[in-house]
Amino acid sequence: MLLKLLSDPRAAAPLLVAIENRTESPKLQEVRFTVDSIIERVKREGDKALRDYTERFDGVAINELRVPPEALERAWQLTPAPLQQALQLANERIRAFHLQQLPNNLEINGPYGETLKRRWRPVHRAGLYVPGGRASYPSTVLMNAIPALVAGVKQRVMVTPPGADGEINQTVLAAAHLAGIDEIYRVGGAQAIAALAFGTESIAQVDVITGPGNLYVTLAKKAVFGRVGIDSLAGPSEVLIIADDSADPVLVAADLLAQAEHDPLAAAILLTTSPQLAQAVPLEVERQLENHPRKELTSASIRDWGLVVLCNSIEEAAELSDRFAPEHLELQVKDPEALADRIQQAGAIFLGKYTPEAAGDYLAGPNHTLPTSGTARFSGALSVETFMHHTSLIGFNQRALQATGPAIMELAASEGLHSHRESVRLRLEINP
Amino acid sequence: MLLKLLSDPRAAAPLLVAIENRTESPKLQEVRFTVDSIIERVKREGDKALRDYTERFDGVAINELRVPPEALERAWQLTPAPLQQALQLANERIRAFHLQQLPNNLEINGPYGETLKRRWRPVHRAGLYVPGGRASYPSTVLMNAIPALVAGVKQRVMVTPPGADGEINQTVLAAAHLAGIDEIYRVGGAQAIAALAFGTESIAQVDVITGPGNLYVTLAKKAVFGRVGIDSLAGPSEVLIIADDSADPVLVAADLLAQAEHDPLAAAILLTTSPQLAQAVPLEVERQLENHPRKELTSASIRDWGLVVLCNSIEEAAELSDRFAPEHLELQVKDPEALADRIQQAGAIFLGKYTPEAAGDYLAGPNHTLPTSGTARFSGALSVETFMHHTSLIGFNQRALQATGPAIMELAASEGLHSHRESVRLRLEINP
Repeated sequence: MLLKLLSDPRAAAPLLVAIENRTESPKLQEVRFTVDSIIERVKREGDKALRDYTERFDGVAINELRVPPEALERAWQLTPAPLQQALQLANERIRAFHLQQLPNNLEINGPYGETLKRRWRPVHRAGLYVPGGRASYPSTVLMNAIPALVAGVKQRVMVTPPGADGEINQTVLAAAHLAGIDEIYRVGGAQAIAALAFGTESIAQVDVITGPGNLYVTLAKKAVFGRVGIDSLAGPSEVLIIADDSADPVLVAADLLAQAEHDPLAAAILLTTSPQLAQAVPLEVERQLENHPRKELTSASIRDWGLVVLCNSIEEAAELSDRFAPEHLELQVKDPEALADRIQQAGAIFLGKYTPEAAGDYLAGPNHTLPTSGTARFSGALSVETFMHHTSLIGFNQRALQATGPAIMELAASEGLHSHRESVRLRLEINP
Repeated sequence: MLLKLLSDPRAAAPLLVAIENRTESPKLQEVRFTVDSIIERVKREGDKALRDYTERFDGVAINELRVPPEALERAWQLTPAPLQQALQLANERIRAFHLQQLPNNLEINGPYGETLKRRWRPVHRAGLYVPGGRASYPSTVLMNAIPALVAGVKQRVMVTPPGADGEINQTVLAAAHLAGIDEIYRVGGAQAIAALAFGTESIAQVDVITGPGNLYVTLAKKAVFGRVGIDSLAGPSEVLIIADDSADPVLVAADLLAQAEHDPLAAAILLTTSPQLAQAVPLEVERQLENHPRKELTSASIRDWGLVVLCNSIEEAAELSDRFAPEHLELQVKDPEALADRIQQAGAIFLGKYTPEAAGDYLAGPNHTLPTSGTARFSGALSVETFMHHTSLIGFNQRALQATGPAIMELAASEGLHSHRESVRLRLEINP
C-alpha cells in the first residue's frame, strides 16, 4: 500500500516532526549562496542580469520585460465564458471577505487630554510573485492581488517567469486583468525578487513582496526581508484530516490526493479514530490514483509524505494536529464546530463533509496563502494588513507633560540617558 | 560645527539615502557566517554551547542559566520608591493603549448560510530579548512584555546577557517582575536567539522572539525567522524633526541629542524652513554637549549621522521625510496635526512642542519598538498582534457547495488539478 498506516499513535509524533522538516536538506546552504549571488548581480547590473538569468533558467530570450497592457484585456476576452464566470464569482467572494479585514484606526485620549493614535495606511507599491510552469495558477493571482487592492495599494505589479515561448499563462493574465493589475513583468526566480526589492531600469522597487515560489524564490524573499516586507516563507503544501466513523472514505481519499497532486513534497495526513476508515482510505487512494493524470507525482507524494494514524480518541488526534500545526486542517467528524474550538494551531480549518479544501483554494473567501511547515504556530493567512503599515501618533499638551514629566525623567535617569531627561526638564521650565 | 548644515535641499536626498544605509558594511557577510555557526552549535550542543559562548563573549562562567524567580521580587523591593512609581505609571499607560489593539474575530455568513471566519489566538510561548551593557533598559522590558501579556500569551520568557559579575541589571529584573515575567535566562547574543528558536535542555523553544539587539542578535533573528516569528529587524535608532520658525532651538537641540546619545550609529536629522533655527540649532547642540556625560559617543553620532537641511517649504520637508520613512518623526510646527495627515511613512509621529520623543520612549502608551532604516514604509510598531496568530474557518453546507461547486470545478480544471475537481464532484453526487 502506498499510504502507510500507523496503528500506534505514540509512534506518530516523531514521524510528524520528520514530515514537518521535510524540506531541510544539506543542499540548502548551496542554494542560499546561489541566491545571494543572483541578488548581488541584479543589484549591480539591473535589467541586463534579468535578461541573462531568464535566458539561462527559463530558456528564452526576452527583449521587452513588460507584458503589453493590452495583452491582459485580450487574455480576458479570449477566456471561455464559464471560466470567466467562475473567476468573477471567486473575485467577488474573496473581495467580500477581505473587505472585513480593513483595520480600524485606534484613538484614545489620555487623562490629561493628550491624544494617542494608531493609524493604518496602505503601502505605496506591492509586488506579487506568481510561479511559472506546473504551478502557474490564476487563483494565486486573485488571492494576492485582491488583498492589495482592498488595502488601497495604488501600485500593484506582478512578476512571473515566461514559458519556453516567452509567453505567460493566458488564464493568469486574464485573472490579473480581472483583479486590476496591468503592470506585469516576464521574469521569475530569485532574480525577480531581487528586481522587486532593489529596482532595475524597467522595474521600480516595491515596499512589500508576496506570493509563493520554489526554494530559490523563498530564499530570495528571506534574503531581501528587512529591505522590503514579505508575506511569509512558504514551504510545500500540506493537509491534515481528522475523521471519525461518520466520515466517507471516498471523500477523505479525494481530499488527501487533492493535496498530494500539488507537489512531490506535499504532505497528506489522516488522523482517525475509526479502524474501518483507516483500512478503507489507503485502498480508496490507490483506486482513485489508477487513472490520475498526475499519477506519478501524486503517488510519490502519497508514498513519501502520506500517513494514516489510528488514534485512541479525537482528543489525541487534536493534540497531534496542534503539535504539527497544519496549513490545512479538515474536520470530517460529527461535531466539527466543537472540535474546531479546541484546535489552537492551524492555518485554515475546513468544517464538515461539505467543505472540501478546494472550496477554500478557489472561492470560499478567506485567503488560500496559508502558513506551512508548522508556521501556523505564529502566523496566519495572507491578509489585507500584509499590504498596510501603521504609524503611532502621540500628541501631548502642557498638562500631560507636567503630570508625567517627573516619571519620564526618573526613568531616563535610571537608564543613564541624560538628554532624554533634559528634553523633558527644559520643556517643564517653559512659561506658557 | 559638529552638526552639518545643508542649505541646498536638492542635495539632501542622496545624503538621506546614505544615512538610511549607514549599517551596510562589507563585514556583514562575515558576521553572518559567525552567527550561522553559533546557531548550528547551539542546535547540536544545547546548554553546553550557551555556557561556552557566555564565557567567551560575556567573560563570565555561568552555572545556573536561569535567574532564581525570587531574585525578581527582591529586585522590585530594592527599587527606590520614585522609580517604582514611574515604572508603575508606564506599565499602566502602555497596558491601556495596547488593550485597544486586541483584534476582533471576523465572522461573515455567505449567501447560502455558509460561515467564514477569521479567529485570533495568542501564541503559546514568547521569548523577549533584552540587551546587556549600555543598552540594558527597563523600558525595553515593559514595551515587549506588556503586549505579550495583553495578547494572552501564557508563557513569557526573557533572555539577557549577564554582566561581568554574572548578574542582570537590577532595574531590568524589577521591570520584568512588574510586567509579570518570572522565567529569565542569563544568556545573550546570537546564542540566546538560537536557544529560543530551537530549545536546549534548560530553555524550551518559543513561537515568537521580539526585542532589540546588536548586529549578531539581529542577524540571528533573521536566520531563525520562518522557524519562529519575529517582531522586526531593528537597526540603530533615528529621529527626524520637521520644524518651522515657531520651534525653540533649545528643545530641538535637546531632542536631536536624545537620539544621538543612544549609539554612535544613531541618526538625528532636522528639516527646517527657518534660516534662524538652522543657524541656532548646531550652536545649541554644541552648548548642550559641553557637560554631557556621554559626550564622546554623542558627539561622534552627531558628527557622523547628524544633519540640518534648510528647506524651501514644509511641503518639501514632508516629501524628504516620507522618502526617508523615519522611525521617530517630531513635528515642531504651528499646525502639527495638519502636517501629520500629509505624512505617509513614519514609525511614530510626535506632535508639537510638548511631545518630546522621550514621552513615547517611556510612558505615553504606544510601543517604542519601531521600524528603523526605512522599514516604516511597510511596517509599524510592535503590537499585541505580534504575539497572536489567526486561523481561517470555512464551514460550507450542501447548498453552498451545490451553488459554487461548478465554479470550483471549472477553476480546478483550468489549473490541471484533477483531484481538486474530483473532491467537489464526488460531494455533489451525495444524496443527503
